[in-house]
Amino acid sequence: MNLQSIYHVPKSNYAYAYTEHDLDIRLRTAKNDCTSVNLVIAQKYHWQNKKTFPMEKVASDRLFDYYQYRYHADDTRLGYYFEISDGKSTVVYSESGFTKEFDDKNAYFHYFQYPYINKTDLHRIPDWVHSTVFYQIFVDRFYNGDHSNDPKILEPWGKPPTPQSFYGGDLQGILEKLPYLQELGINGIYLTPIFQSPSNHKYDTTDYRKVDESFGTKELLCTLVKKAHQMGIRVVLDGVFNHCCWSFAPFQDVLKNGEKSPYKDWFHIDSFPVGRFTEEEAHDYTKPLDSSRLNYRVFGISPSMPKLNTENPELKKYLLDTVAMWTKDTGIDGWRLDVSDEVNHGFWRDFRKTVKEINPEALILGENWHNAYPWLQGDQFDSVMNYPVTKCCIQFFAEHKVNAEQFAGDLYECLMHNTEQVNYAMLNLLDSHDTMRFLTWCGGNKRLLRMAVMFLFSYVGMPCIYYGSEIGMEGGGDPDCRRTFDWNRENWDLDLFHFYQKVISLRRNEKALQYGTIRMYAKDDVFYLVRSYKGSRLVTVINNTGQRKAVSLHNDFEVLLGKEDMVKDTLMPYSGCICRLF
Amino acid sequence: MNLQSIYHVPKSNYAYAYTEHDLDIRLRTAKNDCTSVNLVIAQKYHWQNKKTFPMEKVASDRLFDYYQYRYHADDTRLGYYFEISDGKSTVVYSESGFTKEFDDKNAYFHYFQYPYINKTDLHRIPDWVHSTVFYQIFVDRFYNGDHSNDPKILEPWGKPPTPQSFYGGDLQGILEKLPYLQELGINGIYLTPIFQSPSNHKYDTTDYRKVDESFGTKELLCTLVKKAHQMGIRVVLDGVFNHCCWSFAPFQDVLKNGEKSPYKDWFHIDSFPVGRFTEEEAHDYTKPLDSSRLNYRVFGISPSMPKLNTENPELKKYLLDTVAMWTKDTGIDGWRLDVSDEVNHGFWRDFRKTVKEINPEALILGENWHNAYPWLQGDQFDSVMNYPVTKCCIQFFAEHKVNAEQFAGDLYECLMHNTEQVNYAMLNLLDSHDTMRFLTWCGGNKRLLRMAVMFLFSYVGMPCIYYGSEIGMEGGGDPDCRRTFDWNRENWDLDLFHFYQKVISLRRNEKALQYGTIRMYAKDDVFYLVRSYKGSRLVTVINNTGQRKAVSLHNDFEVLLGKEDMVKDTLMPYSGCICRLF
Repeated sequence: MNLQSIYHVPKSNYAYAYTEHDLDIRLRTAKNDCTSVNLVIAQKYHWQNKKTFPMEKVASDRLFDYYQYRYHADDTRLGYYFEISDGKSTVVYSESGFTKEFDDKNAYFHYFQYPYINKTDLHRIPDWVHSTVFYQIFVDRFYNGDHSNDPKILEPWGKPPTPQSFYGGDLQGILEKLPYLQELGINGIYLTPIFQSPSNHKYDTTDYRKVDESFGTKELLCTLVKKAHQMGIRVVLDGVFNHCCWSFAPFQDVLKNGEKSPYKDWFHIDSFPVGRFTEEEAHDYTKPLDSSRLNYRVFGISPSMPKLNTENPELKKYLLDTVAMWTKDTGIDGWRLDVSDEVNHGFWRDFRKTVKEINPEALILGENWHNAYPWLQGDQFDSVMNYPVTKCCIQFFAEHKVNAEQFAGDLYECLMHNTEQVNYAMLNLLDSHDTMRFLTWCGGNKRLLRMAVMFLFSYVGMPCIYYGSEIGMEGGGDPDCRRTFDWNRENWDLDLFHFYQKVISLRRNEKALQYGTIRMYAKDDVFYLVRSYKGSRLVTVINNTGQRKAVSLHNDFEVLLGKEDMVKDTLMPYSGCICRLF
Repeated sequence: MNLQSIYHVPKSNYAYAYTEHDLDIRLRTAKNDCTSVNLVIAQKYHWQNKKTFPMEKVASDRLFDYYQYRYHADDTRLGYYFEISDGKSTVVYSESGFTKEFDDKNAYFHYFQYPYINKTDLHRIPDWVHSTVFYQIFVDRFYNGDHSNDPKILEPWGKPPTPQSFYGGDLQGILEKLPYLQELGINGIYLTPIFQSPSNHKYDTTDYRKVDESFGTKELLCTLVKKAHQMGIRVVLDGVFNHCCWSFAPFQDVLKNGEKSPYKDWFHIDSFPVGRFTEEEAHDYTKPLDSSRLNYRVFGISPSMPKLNTENPELKKYLLDTVAMWTKDTGIDGWRLDVSDEVNHGFWRDFRKTVKEINPEALILGENWHNAYPWLQGDQFDSVMNYPVTKCCIQFFAEHKVNAEQFAGDLYECLMHNTEQVNYAMLNLLDSHDTMRFLTWCGGNKRLLRMAVMFLFSYVGMPCIYYGSEIGMEGGGDPDCRRTFDWNRENWDLDLFHFYQKVISLRRNEKALQYGTIRMYAKDDVFYLVRSYKGSRLVTVINNTGQRKAVSLHNDFEVLLGKEDMVKDTLMPYSGCICRLF
C-alpha cells in the first residue's frame, strides 16, 4: 500500500458540512492501490457507540482514487478514523497516522475530529444555480439600443476592435435583445462592468454609484432587471473592487493633495508626491513606466488602474454601502467579482454579509483562475469562474494534448478541490473576455466546439456562454475576443445556433443534468459522462478522435442530442451525443 | 519518484504569508525519495523574470520530507512551480500536475498562484510569546488567600478532590503567591475560569460580568493584573463561550417562559417546554438522561451546561461586549477559549476583532485538541493548547511506545501542520486540568518527567507548567489532577523545584530557545534538538533508554543543564541535558 499517497484533513475539502446534519468525508489513496475503505465514526462524547460504513470510490484522477461517505447525524460532534485495505492487509488511519489497531482507550488523542456543524458556518448556495444557464455580455459590443448616449468617437459596428475602440453597445441594447436571449433559451446574464468609466471594458471605475452614461441610467438598469425577471432571466453584475480608474475622484484628490488628502489611505501609496507622470503616460500601455516613477500599487502593470486599499475601513464602508445600494435598489441576482483573489479576505467576508442580508438568494461569484478553496468555505464566495475546467477543455478538445481518460481524471481532480455544493454552483465556461474564443482555440473547427459545448452542458455546475459563441463568433486574445455581435442572421451559422438552442433546452429540462451525481470514464479513448438523479440517467458520449468509435452503454437508450453522428451504435469522428438510458 | 506523495497547496500551511513581504513555501515529498527541490517563482505580471531558488529540507516525519523556502518580494502577486529531482530524473510540479517542462506560454493556466499578501489578512502574533513561560492555575486549588469569601462547604486543604469539592482557593491567594511565582521564574499565568459559577472548576458560568464571589471582585482582579504586570507576569483568562450554566439567568428564563422567552434563541432548543427534569437530575452525572428528556443542546453530555447559540446576534453582542469590558477594564493579556472548536467560526472572527482592537498585543489561545489549522490562519486564534505535542510526549517519555527517531518525526509532523508564526505561539503543555498529571503518566518516575520538561522548554512555542508540577504533584484524570497545592515546603521535592527554576531561567535567558530555528534528529536512539539563533546554538540531548549512551555533538560544548547525568560525553540512562555549542 502506498501509505504516502493517503490523504485526509478534517475541516477541509476532505471533511465538510453539506447540511446542518450531513457531513461529507473524503479519503484519497493512490490509484488502483486499495480495494476498500471503511469509515469508522462516532459521536465523540459517546465513542463506545462507533459504527463502520463502507466508503464509495467516487472519483479517480491521473494519480489518485477518492473515496467518499455522506454521514448523517443529529449530533455532529464527531470522531472518526479509516480502515484501509489493499486486499492483502488492512491499516487504521487516524490523526496519529497509520497503525494496526485503533487505541479506543485514548481515542480523544487519536481520532480525526469534526467538532460541530454550526449553522452560520454552513455554506448555503441559492438553489437556482442548478437550473441556470448563463450568458456573458460584453456590453459595448452586444447591441447599440440607444444612439443618443453613444461615446463621442464610435467605430463602425463590425470593425475589428482595438484596446481603445468604442461601439456604442448599451443597456437599452440588452433590453431590446431580451427576446433574442429568450429565443436562445438562456436564463441568466452576467454583464461586464456597467458603472461610470472612461474605457470600453469599464474595468476601471470612476464612479461606483453611477451607471456609465454611455450605457444608460440607474432607472434603465432597474427596468432591464425587472424585464429580465419577468422573462425568467436572472442578472448578475460585475463588481470591480480590487482597483479603480486613474480618474476616480478620491485618487485625483490624492494626486492633487498628496499626504494631506483624506483619501490617501484608500490606496497603496509608497511615497509622496504620487503620480510622477502625465495622464497620457499613465494610459499608454506601449511604454511601461519604470518603478521609480510608479510609486503606488496598481492592477497588473497598469498605472491607469490604482489598486484600492480595501483594508481601509472608510473605503470598505463606501464600497459596501455602494454594493448594498445596487443590490437593494435594482433587485439583481448577484455579483461577479473582478480580480477577487487579490483583495483581502476580510473585505469579502463583510461583502458576503452585506449582500446576503439584503438578498440571501444572491450569488457571489469570484474571478479566481486557480484552486480557490480558501475563498469557497462559506464565508466568502459561493463559487468562482471555473478556469481550471476551461483549461481541461482547451487541452482535450482544442489542443488534443490529453486523451479521454486523462480528461476524465483532470476533471475529477477539479471536482475534488471543492465541496459538493460549490461544484454545483461553479460558473463553467469555455471562454470569456479574458481568453481567446474557444472556437479560435479549435482553429475554427466547429465539430470540436460542439463536443466541448455538449460536455459543458452535461457537467456539474452552471454553463456560461460567452456572447456570440452561439452564432460562431471567433476571436483571438483581448481585444480580438471582444468583437461586435453580428445581428444579421444571414451571416450566422444557424446549425450552430440551433444546436445551442437544443443543448440549452436539454439542460433546462433535465433534472439529471441539473442535480444529478456525476460519473466519468473513458473506454477506447471515448469519454463518457453519466448524470443520475432519482432514477433518471443521462449519458454524454464524446468521441474526440479521428476514428469512428463503438459506443457501449449496456442499456437501451434514446439519443437526445447528436443523433446525426450516431450511426448504428458508433459515433462519427469528432462528435458527441447525449443519451437517455432506460 | 513517489509522485503520489508529493503535496503542495497554495494559501494553506504549504504557502502562507509570514510578513507583508515574506512568503513561506513548503513542499512535501516521500521520505528519502528526492535529492533536491527548486522553487521557480516570479511576479505573475512579469512572468518572464522568473527565478530559481533551491529549497531547504527543513523537516522529516515518519513518511515524508518537507522542503521550505522563504521568498522575499516587494510585489507579492506571484506564480510559481517546483522542479523536483531524485538524482536520476527531474519533474516539474505545477497546478497542472507533473510534467517534463513548464508551459511558459500559457503560464497563467498552470502555475501555482499566491495572489497577493494583504496586510490585514496577515497573521500577526504578539512578540512576547517568544519569551513567555506560562503557569496554569486551577484557582480553587492554588491558595486560599481570603477566608471571608470561602464557599459554604469547604473540604480540608489536602484531602483528595471529588467532582463536587471546594477548597477556597481565590484571587487573593494568587496575589499573595505572586512572589512564589517570581521565585519559580515564570512570567505568564493562565487562570481557569474566574467568573460567577456554582462549580469548583467554573466552566459553567452563571454571570459573565461578575468575578465569582468566592474568588474575589473585579477590583481584586484589576489589582492582581496590575501587580502581576509590575512583576513582569502576564495574565490570561479563560473564556467559556461554548456553553453556560443551567442557572445562567437567560436559560432560567427559557425554562420558565418557554417559547415566549426573549432568550429562546440564545440556546439550541429542540422543542418546548425545555428541561423535563429537576435541577438535581440535571446535575447528577451518574445517571445520564435519555434523549427524549434532554431536548436542548449541551456541552458534552451534561444537562447542567446548555450549549450557547453563539450564532445569535444578540447573544454574540452580549458576550463580545462582556469580553471587551474585561479586556479593557482589567488590562489582561489575552484569553484562553474553552471548547473553542465547537463554537462557530464567525463568532471567533468577531471575537478577534473585538479583542485586538482594544489590545493588539493580547493573545488569543484556543482549546483545540486536534489539527487546528482552520482556526489558525490569522482571522481567529493566535494559537491553541498544543495537545498533539502532549500526545507525542506521552508516547515517548511516559509510555515508551515510540523511539527517538519516531518522536522527532511526529514532532516535525506537528510543526508542518501550522505556519511558523503559529508554531512559536503554541502553548506547549505536558498536562492540564483535563488530563492525568504527566508525572502520573510516568508512573511517578521523575527522571522521565525531567527529560520531558527539558524537551518542552527547548521546543518551539511557549512552555506551560500545570500548577504544582514543579514540586512533584501527582494525580490521575479529573478530578484527581486538581488536587490542592501543598504550601509546606518540607513536603516538596526541592531538587525538582530547583530543576524547574533552572530550566525556566535558561529558557528566559537564551534567545536561541525563544527565537531559534529548530532541527531534530535521532542517533543511536538518542534524541537531539538544536535551536539556532544569530550564531548561538543550543542542543538538547535526551537519552530515553535504559542504557548509557554516547553523545556526539561534533563541537566543543558547555553543559548548561543536566551536568550531573553527563559523564565523559555519555548520558546516563533516562536523562537529558541542554548544552551550548561553540
